Amino acid sequence: MDFRTDMAVERRDLYRKANHLENEIDGVECEEEEIEDIKITRVKISNAQGEEALQKPIGNYITIDVKKINNIATEKEDKIVETISKELAAIVDKHIKKEEEIMIVGLGNLYSTPDSLGSRVVNEVEITRHIKIYLPQYIDENTRSISAISPGVLGTTGIESAEIIRGIVDKVKPKMILAIDSLCSKNVSRINKSIQISDTGIVPGGGVGNARDELSEKTLGIPVIALGVPTVVEMASITNDCLDLFIEDLQKKAESNDVLNKLKDEDNYQRIKEALIPNDYNFIVTPKEIDELIDSMKDIISRGINEAL
Amino acid sequence: MDFRTDMAVERRDLYRKANHLENEIDGVECEEEEIEDIKITRVKISNAQGEEALQKPIGNYITIDVKKINNIATEKEDKIVETISKELAAIVDKHIKKEEEIMIVGLGNLYSTPDSLGSRVVNEVEITRHIKIYLPQYIDENTRSISAISPGVLGTTGIESAEIIRGIVDKVKPKMILAIDSLCSKNVSRINKSIQISDTGIVPGGGVGNARDELSEKTLGIPVIALGVPTVVEMASITNDCLDLFIEDLQKKAESNDVLNKLKDEDNYQRIKEALIPNDYNFIVTPKEIDELIDSMKDIISRGINEAL
Amino acid sequence: MDFRTDMAVERRDLYRKANHLENEIDGVECEEEEIEDIKITRVKISNAQGEEALQKPIGNYITIDVKKINNIATEKEDKIVETISKELAAIVDKHIKKEEEIMIVGLGNLYSTPDSLGSRVVNEVEITRHIKIYLPQYIDENTRSISAISPGVLGTTGIESAEIIRGIVDKVKPKMILAIDSLCSKNVSRINKSIQISDTGIVPGGGVGNARDELSEKTLGIPVIALGVPTVVEMASITNDCLDLFIEDLQKKAESNDVLNKLKDEDNYQRIKEALIPNDYNFIVTPKEIDELIDSMKDIISRGINEAL
Amino acid sequence: MDFRTDMAVERRDLYRKANHLENEIDGVECEEEEIEDIKITRVKISNAQGEEALQKPIGNYITIDVKKINNIATEKEDKIVETISKELAAIVDKHIKKEEEIMIVGLGNLYSTPDSLGSRVVNEVEITRHIKIYLPQYIDENTRSISAISPGVLGTTGIESAEIIRGIVDKVKPKMILAIDSLCSKNVSRINKSIQISDTGIVPGGGVGNARDELSEKTLGIPVIALGVPTVVEMASITNDCLDLFIEDLQKKAESNDVLNKLKDEDNYQRIKEALIPNDYNFIVTPKEIDELIDSMKDIISRGINEAL
Repeated sequence: MDFRTDMAVERRDLYRKANHLENEIDGVECEEEEIEDIKITRVKISNAQGEEALQKPIGNYITIDVKKINNIATEKEDKIVETISKELAAIVDKHIKKEEEIMIVGLGNLYSTPDSLGSRVVNEVEITRHIKIYLPQYIDENTRSISAISPGVLGTTGIESAEIIRGIVDKVKPKMILAIDSLCSKNVSRINKSIQISDTGIVPGGGVGNARDELSEKTLGIPVIALGVPTVVEMASITNDCLDLFIEDLQKKAESNDVLNKLKDEDNYQRIKEALIPNDYNFIVTPKEIDELIDSMKDIISRGINEAL
Repeated sequence: MDFRTDMAVERRDLYRKANHLENEIDGVECEEEEIEDIKITRVKISNAQGEEALQKPIGNYITIDVKKINNIATEKEDKIVETISKELAAIVDKHIKKEEEIMIVGLGNLYSTPDSLGSRVVNEVEITRHIKIYLPQYIDENTRSISAISPGVLGTTGIESAEIIRGIVDKVKPKMILAIDSLCSKNVSRINKSIQISDTGIVPGGGVGNARDELSEKTLGIPVIALGVPTVVEMASITNDCLDLFIEDLQKKAESNDVLNKLKDEDNYQRIKEALIPNDYNFIVTPKEIDELIDSMKDIISRGINEAL
Repeated sequence: MDFRTDMAVERRDLYRKANHLENEIDGVECEEEEIEDIKITRVKISNAQGEEALQKPIGNYITIDVKKINNIATEKEDKIVETISKELAAIVDKHIKKEEEIMIVGLGNLYSTPDSLGSRVVNEVEITRHIKIYLPQYIDENTRSISAISPGVLGTTGIESAEIIRGIVDKVKPKMILAIDSLCSKNVSRINKSIQISDTGIVPGGGVGNARDELSEKTLGIPVIALGVPTVVEMASITNDCLDLFIEDLQKKAESNDVLNKLKDEDNYQRIKEALIPNDYNFIVTPKEIDELIDSMKDIISRGINEAL
Repeated sequence: MDFRTDMAVERRDLYRKANHLENEIDGVECEEEEIEDIKITRVKISNAQGEEALQKPIGNYITIDVKKINNIATEKEDKIVETISKELAAIVDKHIKKEEEIMIVGLGNLYSTPDSLGSRVVNEVEITRHIKIYLPQYIDENTRSISAISPGVLGTTGIESAEIIRGIVDKVKPKMILAIDSLCSKNVSRINKSIQISDTGIVPGGGVGNARDELSEKTLGIPVIALGVPTVVEMASITNDCLDLFIEDLQKKAESNDVLNKLKDEDNYQRIKEALIPNDYNFIVTPKEIDELIDSMKDIISRGINEAL
């Protein structure tokens, strides 16, 4: 299966639907919780079967879905921040001790609005490493040491993000990476309204077709927590979904139509992509309000991180 | 017909296709010219039939299509600038004299990248009105007086752009408006690669469903030249096109299928829009590189304007 | 006297010092209040003598001085916002009724960081005018109608800000203008730490040497409240102050030195300006952190305005 | 001597003036060249005496002074770009071969306008390293491999720039570093009008009082070329200069005045700094047009680099 989404929760739904599963996937556990307007879905991939089914490494994937992030009341925003903070703190505490050093990595391209979330969050989080080293008298000795870096993207630096991070980790020697990234979803209603927290590392740029070396405990020797927000849906992906809906509709009316049945079983993604989309640019589907939404999300995420760490 | 595009050239193609016309539409004239990589299409709406067919006022609509605007050689960029400049100068000269005052109006929302072109061009064009008034000794007396304004958008100001422009025109009394705007196209391959110049005025925000009072000779008493660049395609629009392609393909294979024939004749736009798209945001299709593309286009357009005026 | 500051409170101090006054200036009243870290100074110019002494129109000038605006605790920021909101509401209520329409005008140049405060605040304030007109069912009928506009600067538009505002006021017919602007101070310690609220109108760009037509009840026919924040000190101004300090110091030591006495009586501003400063640019003194400070101040001011109105 | 400037050419002038030298400083060579409006000064520190006098390492320091960088004719800009390109190419060729890999390092803080030049240039230069590695068929095999990185500043990352660079250099193994930085000058007329190119490495943040580990052949094992542009003058520095001018003037008139003579011999910088400047922020002197100037300079520098490499 070619999922074309970075969200574990969506991959689980797609896999179950494609395989007509009523029960849970073998090797996958899932539980849901709702707090007021906020829905938390915890997907756990627990063995190799689950790993192969969802094409994601063994580990935990928490999705926080909210209704809206801009123009909301202060209390609603505080509640979202608190939820992110709590989930993030819980997953961090599973892997390292309270005082151990974390390096926050803002992935993506600052100069491309839908891909700028990581870099912009890095600019807002509270950094303590330099104070602990140069001005320890001004800071509580139990404060966790936090550093942060935006490695840029391959097209701008000529260097893989993972290679840059490995070089810096060798010098700074943090005990954990917290990587912030923009994700790709299959569902327009999740754009800028979902936060996925996982403890299985990340492949920078993985969701939009230009996969690079991964950032993970395997490659860096320290746990890598990833916090991602879907900011785009690929156009060919959404158009394909739309066709599926339509073909289903047609089938209901024109039953036993062999041509249609055959079409339905195929994945028309590649065909649509070739037919509709000129190859100079990567076309994406995004809300017109993307600049404002990234701005609100940046505030929420950085507050969530500051409170958690 | 609901065209869902601001481009006269696209409306002409859509109308002819929908009405199976081999010949030109009554009341519409069209001529094409190619200069190296640049294609110029001149659509002229000459009477009420043409006006009704394309749902655009009588007048001239020039479309300049280019292959690429970013990362191109200096000479290619100079050629594009020169073409815009020549076409713009010709249309301006049809309506006012060499030395008569022009006010440039940058429509759209500076804080929404795909909608920011107009405001950003205004920041780059050469302004002379204040020099002619306050420091006439520093400027050639034949220099045309140019002023420029970005009225913002209704959501940010609470006031219609057209109302703001009317207020300023009453005081400044220019002889012509040159309005710069982002447009909506039906064709992803035109995004940030097309420039439409027309002499029939403009309805700010017209292409994306939130039409306001128009800017035109009728409402302002002076000619309104509009220079627009398509920066977005509506998602429902592109998905609808994709379905049409598919249904055609199905029909070829499963001929005389009544259900399909019926579907094809319907406009599924509204149904798709309702089914697929949550109503909080306006989803658009845009290249991932939109920030960089708007930046390149802003340079090209402002150079074209500076040379033309 | 050439004050080279837009702050009434600074002009009062300078005038009293220059004229060796122990008592209050005739036609000027002044009272101070301190709430925790926040100092409020209310200067009232009550007659023509006061007007002539301070070269500011008759009316009220409230200065709110704070210790710090960035990297402060949420409660401190809330306290500053509340103070601005209270003072602003009081002065607005003196002039118009609760439900009467206000137009917020963001003066200055968005593309020049130290001069961008007005335009940036306009982008953050809550606008209601269009909702009251087009969607009255979504808003409480007692909500005040608020619109907002950033007219840009003469160098970018070729049109005086005052002329643009007059044109728009003629169409929109608000009952009051609230103008936001960056000010010039004589005191580096006030930069981005002071807010002046006055009810006497404003001369856009007045403080930095390029005075334009004023915005005031006299020119617009409606009250003009101005809210300004000092963001720059002129270099020649600060150097002149420094020389005064030095000459005083010299005089204490080298008494009856005629040359020095003479120097002291002169205003060396123009001489310093000519000697030290090349005339291509306007040199200003500003904190290195100006981008961050403008950003914090923009948030504080827009919250203050939203709460007040 | 405390020079308070990063420019070797200014240090030479200050040293000679302070020591009343008519001849060249021992261990320093200097030659000047003028090409139309552009002045090139080549200062060479050739031995330990020169090093000690100017407090700069042995090596070459080329200063390119221009009259103006914004709103100039295309040919003038081309001439400046060509000069930078030629001087840079010459100094690069002294140290590495035509095809050897270079890493461009943009120092400074993107979010602080006067300090953002380095990061902004990095975003504009042409990067080839990833194409040579992943798509070698699309690029001439003799093209030099270029990568680029913006390490951010200590306050934002918690990590010394030099430490980040060392980590990345260890992985990427370029043959030379080209570091771009904003500099501190003593002369307001040099702000955004001067380019210094040197082959002796750089101390990030060196000029504004927060010196960090240096980037140099000694610390990185490869040559470090630095290209810097003065964007600020410290306020206390300029005020001190102004006092010197004034005291000179006083002395001419009031000869043999012992108090004045004594004052003149002192360095009043510290006293002025303490007296005039509150310690919360770093006050700088900068042109009001700094945003626009940085933008123009970024274009010129990145074109110069692209042509040179």
